[in-house]
Amino acid sequence: MRIDLNSDLGESYGSWSMGNDAQILPIVSSANIACGFHAGDPLGIFNTLKQAAQLQVTVGAHVSYPDLVGFGRRNMQLSYDELMTDVMYQIAALQGLAKAAGTEVKYVKPHGALYNTIATDLEQARAVIDAIKKMDSDLTLVALAGSSLIKYAQQQGLQVVAEAFADRAYNADGSLVSRRLPGAVLHDADFVAQRVVSMLKEGGVVSIDGQFTPIDAQSICLHGDTEGALSMAAAIREALIQEGIEIRSFCEGS
Amino acid sequence: MRIDLNSDLGESYGSWSMGNDAQILPIVSSANIACGFHAGDPLGIFNTLKQAAQLQVTVGAHVSYPDLVGFGRRNMQLSYDELMTDVMYQIAALQGLAKAAGTEVKYVKPHGALYNTIATDLEQARAVIDAIKKMDSDLTLVALAGSSLIKYAQQQGLQVVAEAFADRAYNADGSLVSRRLPGAVLHDADFVAQRVVSMLKEGGVVSIDGQFTPIDAQSICLHGDTEGALSMAAAIREALIQEGIEIRSFCEGS
Amino acid sequence: MRIDLNSDLGESYGSWSMGNDAQILPIVSSANIACGFHAGDPLGIFNTLKQAAQLQVTVGAHVSYPDLVGFGRRNMQLSYDELMTDVMYQIAALQGLAKAAGTEVKYVKPHGALYNTIATDLEQARAVIDAIKKMDSDLTLVALAGSSLIKYAQQQGLQVVAEAFADRAYNADGSLVSRRLPGAVLHDADFVAQRVVSMLKEGGVVSIDGQFTPIDAQSICLHGDTEGALSMAAAIREALIQEGIEIRSFCEGS
Amino acid sequence: MRIDLNSDLGESYGSWSMGNDAQILPIVSSANIACGFHAGDPLGIFNTLKQAAQLQVTVGAHVSYPDLVGFGRRNMQLSYDELMTDVMYQIAALQGLAKAAGTEVKYVKPHGALYNTIATDLEQARAVIDAIKKMDSDLTLVALAGSSLIKYAQQQGLQVVAEAFADRAYNADGSLVSRRLPGAVLHDADFVAQRVVSMLKEGGVVSIDGQFTPIDAQSICLHGDTEGALSMAAAIREALIQEGIEIRSFCEGS
Repeated sequence: MRIDLNSDLGESYGSWSMGNDAQILPIVSSANIACGFHAGDPLGIFNTLKQAAQLQVTVGAHVSYPDLVGFGRRNMQLSYDELMTDVMYQIAALQGLAKAAGTEVKYVKPHGALYNTIATDLEQARAVIDAIKKMDSDLTLVALAGSSLIKYAQQQGLQVVAEAFADRAYNADGSLVSRRLPGAVLHDADFVAQRVVSMLKEGGVVSIDGQFTPIDAQSICLHGDTEGALSMAAAIREALIQEGIEIRSFCEGS
Repeated sequence: MRIDLNSDLGESYGSWSMGNDAQILPIVSSANIACGFHAGDPLGIFNTLKQAAQLQVTVGAHVSYPDLVGFGRRNMQLSYDELMTDVMYQIAALQGLAKAAGTEVKYVKPHGALYNTIATDLEQARAVIDAIKKMDSDLTLVALAGSSLIKYAQQQGLQVVAEAFADRAYNADGSLVSRRLPGAVLHDADFVAQRVVSMLKEGGVVSIDGQFTPIDAQSICLHGDTEGALSMAAAIREALIQEGIEIRSFCEGS
Repeated sequence: MRIDLNSDLGESYGSWSMGNDAQILPIVSSANIACGFHAGDPLGIFNTLKQAAQLQVTVGAHVSYPDLVGFGRRNMQLSYDELMTDVMYQIAALQGLAKAAGTEVKYVKPHGALYNTIATDLEQARAVIDAIKKMDSDLTLVALAGSSLIKYAQQQGLQVVAEAFADRAYNADGSLVSRRLPGAVLHDADFVAQRVVSMLKEGGVVSIDGQFTPIDAQSICLHGDTEGALSMAAAIREALIQEGIEIRSFCEGS
Repeated sequence: MRIDLNSDLGESYGSWSMGNDAQILPIVSSANIACGFHAGDPLGIFNTLKQAAQLQVTVGAHVSYPDLVGFGRRNMQLSYDELMTDVMYQIAALQGLAKAAGTEVKYVKPHGALYNTIATDLEQARAVIDAIKKMDSDLTLVALAGSSLIKYAQQQGLQVVAEAFADRAYNADGSLVSRRLPGAVLHDADFVAQRVVSMLKEGGVVSIDGQFTPIDAQSICLHGDTEGALSMAAAIREALIQEGIEIRSFCEGS
C-alpha cells in the first residue's frame, strides 16, 4: 500500500511570511507551490523550490484566480480565455523556476475558490484542463475525491489524482462538511492519524452522521501553517509508516 | 548585408490597449513581448504570441521591474536575488506561453528603466545575466550599442546583440541624446529611413554636434504606437529592402 | 424640466489612456470618477478632478471591486466587511483628492460588475450602502432605474438617483436588454437623442418588443470613449437644450 | 518632561499577518498606520484604526512608495507629480477610514525607502510636503532627528516632529549606523530602556565610537513585530513612567 501526502507551500509574499515550508517539506511527498496569483513572489517561490528539490519532494503548480488581497479564496467570474491563459502563465512561470531549482513541475492543483468552483463548474474546469494540456499533457490534475471534475478531466485526456482531506469531516455522500458547520474540522492529531490509516485500509471514513462513506483517494492534503497543524501532519506520517503504508508521490512509478 | 528590426509588443493590459501589434508585426523581424511586470496580461500576451508565430517573427522576453502603474520606466533598487528571480519568472512565463502559441523565446531585451540601468550598473546587470543563464543559456541578450553591458555580458558567456535606435539622436561618444534635450527624437520618416541605411553601410551616424560616430548594431529598434511611428517603421523597412539589405532576426543563421 | 447627464471618467491608468475626459466633460453635468480599484492612478484621477472642478461638473465616486486587470467587470464574492471597507477606502481617497482639486464628491455610482450585482443582490448592496453612510450620509447613490436597489437604499436612509442608459434597448419590464442579444446597443446618434427627449417627456421608452415601458430616471449615462460615442453624447446634449430641458446635476437645487 | 512613543501598525495584508497591533497599541501614544501602498488592505486598516480610536492612540498616515512586494523598502524614482498624488491618495484614504473609525489623522510619517530618501533628497521631500499641505496643512510631519528634512519642512510651513530610534546605534554626527554594520541594532531591552531615558534627560546618546552625540527628538520609534520587540517596547514605557516622563502624543497640548 502507498499514499501521497501533499501540502500548500511557497505562500509567503515579499516581507509577509506564511506557513512553515522548511518544517512541512520533510513530512510530505508532494508540494503544491504558489505561482504568484494568490501568493508567492518569485524569490520566495524559488527558495521553496530549491528546498523541495533538495528533499526530493515532488512539485506541483498551485494555480489560482488573480486575487492577492483575497488570497484566491473569493470566487471570480473569469471568461474561458482569461482563466485558461492565467493558468498557463502560472504553470509556465513555475516550470521555469523549477527547472532552475533542479526539479520539475509534475502536477497541477488549483487553489482555494478555483479548486472549489471547478469541482462542479465544468465550464471553468475546461479552461483549467485546456491550460494544462497546452503546457504539458503529462501533468497530473489533483482534484477533490468524489467530485464530478475527476471523471470529466479523465474524459478530456488528463491523468487525475483524487485527494482527501485528513482533518475534514465528510457527509454521507462523500462531500466535505461545510466549514461553517460544527464538527467540520477535526483537531485531535492522533484521531486524525488513525482515521487516515483506516480511510486507506478500508476505503472510506465514517461520515458526520455515522455512516460508512467510501472515499477513493490517492493523495491526502495536510496543513503546516500552525504548530498544531505541523504536529498533526507529523502524526499522520508516523502512523502511516507504522502501518507499513508507503508515503510516495503519485508521480513515481511502483 | 542584413539587419534585425525589433519592436515592443504585447503592451496592452486588460481593457487598456497600447500599440498596434497587428500593424507592426509584418514590419519587424523580432518582437519584444511584455511579460506582465510593466505591461501585458496573460490573455493579451498569448494573443500577440500567436500573431508573432503566424508571421514567423522571432520572439523575445521584454523583462521589466515590477511596476505596472509606472510602466517599468522608474528606477527601482531591487536586491540581486529579487531582480534575478523576477527576471527568471518573466522569462519562464513567456517561454511557456510561447510554446503553447507555437513559437519559442529566443532572446531577452530588458525594458525601460531596467534597460537603461543595466547599460552601466553591472551589479544589476549581473542579476539579469544570471537569470538568463539559469533559464536558457542559449538566449541572446539585446543591449544598447556602445554600452559597457555588451562586453560584460559576453565575458559572462552570453550571446549579445547590440541595438541602435532609428529615431534617436546620438552624442559624439555614441550615447543617446537625452530625451530632455531638443533634437533628441527625430520625426521625419524619410530622413530616419535613410539614416538607418547609412548607419548600416557606413558603420555609424552623424552625431548631434556634427561628428561621425561609429555605431555597431545588429538590430534596430522601431516603434509602432502611433500612426507616425508606424509610417516611419514602414519607411525604414522599405528603404532597407530597396538597398538590398536583408531584414532578418539575429537568431537566424546565414 | 431638467435632467442630469453622467459619464465615466478618470479611467486611464499610468501610461494607458482610456476615454476622452477633456471632450466629454463639457457635455455632462456629472463625472463618475474612477477611484483606483478598476482604473485610475492618483495622478490621473487628480488631473481629471481638476478639469471637472474648472468646468463645474459635479463629481461622484465610481467605486469598484478590486480588479484592475479585469477592469472591475468580473463578479467577485467579497465578504460584507471586505466590500464595505473597499468602498469606504475608495470614496475617502477620492474625497481627499477632490478637495485638493477644489471640488467635492457629491455622489457614489458603483462600477461594472458591482453595479450590476447590487441592483439585485441586497446583501452586497447593504455593504455599499453602509460604506456610503459611514463616509458621508449626504452622498447620493446612483442606481439602475427600475432596480430593487432603489427602494432598498431609500429604506436604508440614502438619497437615490435613478439612472437610464441612452444607448441601450429596454425589455418590457424595464430591465436592460442583455448585451449578448441583437439590438441591445443603439448606434444612431439622432435616434438616440430623440429617444432620450421622449423618455423624459413621456416618462418611458418603447421596449425592444414594441411596448411602452415607463422609466423614471433623473440621470442619463453617456459614453465618451470613442468618436461615435462622443458625437452621440453631443447630439443628446443638443437635443435636450433645443427642447428646453435643463441639463443640471441632480445635486443642485432647483 | 514628556515624550511621544510611535510604532508602525496596520501592516498586515489580506491573509498575511504582520506585527501585533493589539499588543503594541497599549504601549505607544502614536500609531503610524499603513495606507495600502506598502501594506494594509482596507479591512485590516479599518480594524486597526478602530482599536487605536478605542485606546485613544493618536493616528498618523504611514505613506509609502507603491511597492507591495518590496514592502516600500526599495527606492523608486517617481516624478514630483506621481509622488505628490500618491501621497495625497494615501493620506485621503486613511483620513476617511479614520473618521469612520471615530478618530482623525493627525500626522504623516513616510515609510521605509521614502522615509530615508526624503531625509536628504529635498526634491522628493517637496512632493511629500506639498501633498501634506494640500490635504491638511495642520498635519505634522515626523522626520528623522538631525536630518536636513526637518528645517526644510519647517521653512515650507509644516509642523515637524523629530524622531529617534530606541534600538539603533548612532554615529558621532547624529546619523544612524547602517544596518549592515555590526552593532547597528541594540537587543538588550533594559539597556535600551535606560538609553532612551538618558537620551531624553541629557539630550543625546553615546555614539558607536564613544562620543556624546546630541539628539533632539520629540518622538521615539518602537517596534512590535516580535516577542523581543514587544518586551523592549514595554520596558521602555515602564522606564519612562518610573522616571516621571509623561508618554503623550506630540499632537496633544501641554
